[in-house]
Order: sequence, then structure tokens, then C-alpha cells
Amino acid sequence: MTTDLLLEGRHFLSDVDPEALGHKALAVNVSDLAAMGATPLGCVLGLSLPSVDDIWLGRFAHGFRALADAVACPLVGGDTTRSQQGIVISVTAMGQVPEGRALTRSAARSGDDIWVTGTLGGAHIALELLQGKHPSEKVLLDTLLPLLERPQPPVHFGAALVGLAHAAIDISDGLLQDLGHVLTASGCAAELDYAVMPVHPALKNLDPVVTQSAVLNGGDVYQLCFTAAPEDAGLIRQLAERHHVAATIVGRVLPGEGLRVLKTPAPLGENDYTGFDHFR
Amino acid sequence: MTTDLLLEGRHFLSDVDPEALGHKALAVNVSDLAAMGATPLGCVLGLSLPSVDDIWLGRFAHGFRALADAVACPLVGGDTTRSQQGIVISVTAMGQVPEGRALTRSAARSGDDIWVTGTLGGAHIALELLQGKHPSEKVLLDTLLPLLERPQPPVHFGAALVGLAHAAIDISDGLLQDLGHVLTASGCAAELDYAVMPVHPALKNLDPVVTQSAVLNGGDVYQLCFTAAPEDAGLIRQLAERHHVAATIVGRVLPGEGLRVLKTPAPLGENDYTGFDHFR
Repeated sequence: MTTDLLLEGRHFLSDVDPEALGHKALAVNVSDLAAMGATPLGCVLGLSLPSVDDIWLGRFAHGFRALADAVACPLVGGDTTRSQQGIVISVTAMGQVPEGRALTRSAARSGDDIWVTGTLGGAHIALELLQGKHPSEKVLLDTLLPLLERPQPPVHFGAALVGLAHAAIDISDGLLQDLGHVLTASGCAAELDYAVMPVHPALKNLDPVVTQSAVLNGGDVYQLCFTAAPEDAGLIRQLAERHHVAATIVGRVLPGEGLRVLKTPAPLGENDYTGFDHFR
Repeated sequence: MTTDLLLEGRHFLSDVDPEALGHKALAVNVSDLAAMGATPLGCVLGLSLPSVDDIWLGRFAHGFRALADAVACPLVGGDTTRSQQGIVISVTAMGQVPEGRALTRSAARSGDDIWVTGTLGGAHIALELLQGKHPSEKVLLDTLLPLLERPQPPVHFGAALVGLAHAAIDISDGLLQDLGHVLTASGCAAELDYAVMPVHPALKNLDPVVTQSAVLNGGDVYQLCFTAAPEDAGLIRQLAERHHVAATIVGRVLPGEGLRVLKTPAPLGENDYTGFDHFR
């Protein structure tokens, strides 16, 4: 069971495409199910709007419904209310996993490979482009915006990892922060190799230091980071291929404490490991 | 599975006792479980706050936790985020009921008794006192405020009604409106007898017309309205006594369409049947 609150002005901009918003509101929850290895059962939606706009609602519903159908997570109930402050969206999803076999943050073991699905950095650069932090590049934004607005969590691949992966988490706040949660919960350290990171190919012309920050600390990825025994790497690669998911080994779990990234373009500071603080 | 969004300024006032707010945020969901005859399994909480106030949070958590313990509905997860607009609370609760046996709105049958648990009118008058709509009466407010702030949905009694009650709903928007949903869904009519309504005893000195409106249209009750065959009335009374719940027969389901209330102090208008429109 997983729940997320999305607030206008905090988690999405007021002029966001409502269809993309409907997609993302469900996607962030489906991503949590994926990280547990759970198969979706259904979801409920709480929706608070300043006014009723049938066109907006129709598009929101279409985006929500399309993903719900795609991942077989039907909307089974909800609550609607008027908001005086802006749009508030609450989604809770339920999934199923055999008893005692859910993937957790605390099951990483020293010697495990560290895997990442999909690509990294794209959603964060898209957000920065929208915020005007880079010279406007329409082609780049068109390429990257779907990563930010319509994340595609690998939920069926996540379910296939049950019994195979050790620890798992979805990358919502940034690779280093989310992997940090796994390491803390598991009592392990890790070493990542920046040179093998699945950096989104559209980022190749950006300043390498900008890219590095987006790859290691950028949030809104909604892909999986998981650990597994090296002897299972071949089987995991076959499953990933079957599920049309890119899966890359980016490092290794070690005994001890801490998280080190090798071969980065720029040295990492203390702040690079903290990522996104929900109350800051 | 049931979900509710509570927004500051809309569903609660900014200066509400945080302990009462924690209680109520869970109670409105437990009330929905009660109306389905479901036994609570667990809940998740989404909480968005303008800032972190440890004292406020501690009291909110205490109120939430006390009810969660009382009805065996443990908090199993959640989401916290910063709000720029005010407090937003989202609670989703899960319950369990044997397959195909959940109480629904559509199962009322002509000839059924119509039952109400608890008392009526108190929460609404408490709200009106807070809004300054009546001369301030401290004793009356002290008596009625717990009904508004700490509703006690009869969840275990609701579960005991499975296989016995036909239709059920919780009274959140007002007796006439909520019973109206049952009648529409069931394709039935009903006649209520105002003279036998379980009016809260503290309302006896108020203008009878004010009381009538609070009893028939007042929301925030979070008690049950259900229908059952007359031959089961004795058994239902015994169960109610066992669960320390007041249960009163207030009318009867009839063939046809419509809802009539007999013996009211004032004639009922069309508006009395509409209750609370969520988007108005």
C-alpha cells in the first residue's frame, strides 16, 4: 500500500498538461509498488480542485486512465472536494506480493551488484529547462519533457525481480539519496562507477558538471535502483530484455558505511549526498 | 478501500485542536469502512504542512494513533511534504469483508426498517456555534463539540451487521441526502417519522425548526444509516446493545420513488433533500 500527495506549485506547475498530470499522479505510486516487487491491484484518487473544468477533468482522467489500464491498476474509488488553495491530488495504490517476499530497502548484501533501470538525468534537466536555468533549447526540452511528465515505472519488471533482487528502491529524490536509504537500512557501503552510468543520451552536449549533478542527484526519475547477487546478473539481463527495460550495473555493495562515486567529472561535496529534503 | 481529503479552511478551521484533527482524519475513513461492514486492516496518511511544528505534530499523531489503536486500524505508511497553502491531510484506509458480502447502498428492499445509530443534530449545532450562528452558549458547545471533533463511527457494530443489514451508508452529508443515495441506488422510496428521531438531548431547548434542520440535514455525523428486514429488529437491538451503540428505527423503505418525513415541526422544502454539494 503506497500513498502520495501532489500539490500545485510544489510538485507540479499550474500550467502543466492535465493529461500528463493524471499520468504522473498514478505513476509515482506505481513506482513505489515496482520498488516492492508488487503487482498492482487497484488505486483510489482524492482530487481537490478550485473549480470544475470539464475539459481539464477529462484530460486528467484520460492520462490517469491510460496508465491505470497499461499497468492493470484500476481506479476503484475516491473523494472529490473543492479547494480554496489550488489543485491537490492524493493517490493511494495497492499491490500484491507473496507474503514475506516484498522487496525492501534493508536487504542489500555486501558483494551485490547495484543496478539502475532506464536512464538518468533527463527528468532533472527537463525541470531545469522549464525553470529557465539553461539557455532555452526547444529540441532538448521536447526530448526530455516526457521523462519528467510521463515517467514509466518498470512495474512488471519489478514484480519479476521478486526472489531475485535483494534490496530495491525507486529513484524519486535522486540516485545518491535513494541508494543512501538502501545502504543505511541494510548497514552496507557502496561504490558507484560514474563512467558506466546510463546517462540519457540527449545530455551529451551539456556541461559535464551539470550532467553529473542531474544524474546523481536529479529526482523525478521513477526508475528502479536494486541490488542482486553477481551470479544472477545474466538472468536479470534476460528478464530486463523480456520486459523491454534497460538495466545497467552501476556499482557494487561493500561492507562498512558510506557511498563513493568513482570517475566523476567533478569532485562530490557533502551536499551531493543529501538530495531532496521534503521539508526544506 | 476508502480515501478522504481534508483541507484547512474547507474541512477544518485553522485553530482546530490538532489531537481532534488527527482523530477526525482517521474517523471519517473508518466511518466508510463501517458503512461497508468492513473490519479495518490498516491505513496510510498523506500529510502536507506549511512548516514543521513538533508540538502540533505530536498532538496530531496522538489523536490519530489513539483512534487507530481503538479500532485496530494501524498506520502502515504515508507521505509527508511541505505545503505552501495550508494543511492538507489525506487518509486511505483498507478493510476486509467476506467476498460478496460488503454492505452496499443498493441493497435496500421495500418493507425494510430504516435504522440510525447514535444521535443526530449535535455535530451540526456545534459547527453553527463555532460559526457564531447562535448566541454563544459555552455549556452547549462543551457538550456538542466532541460530536463534531471526535466522531466515533460504530465500526465493529458495522462489521456485525454483515449478513443482517441490507443497505448501509454513513451519515457524512446529512441524513436526508445520504439516505437519498441509498434510495436512488436501491430503486426505492422511504418514509421517515421525525417524532422518533434520536435527536441529541442537548438540543431540546433550541428552536424546533433549527433542530429539525440539524437533525435531517446536518453533516459530520459519522454514524450509520442502514436498512434491514423487520423480523431482524430484535437481533439488531441485541447486537447494538452488545456493541454499546444506540440504534433506532426511524422509518421504513417503500416501493416507488421519493423520501417523505412525517411529523416535522416545519414543512420540508426541496432544499432540505439536497444537503451538501461537494463542489458548491
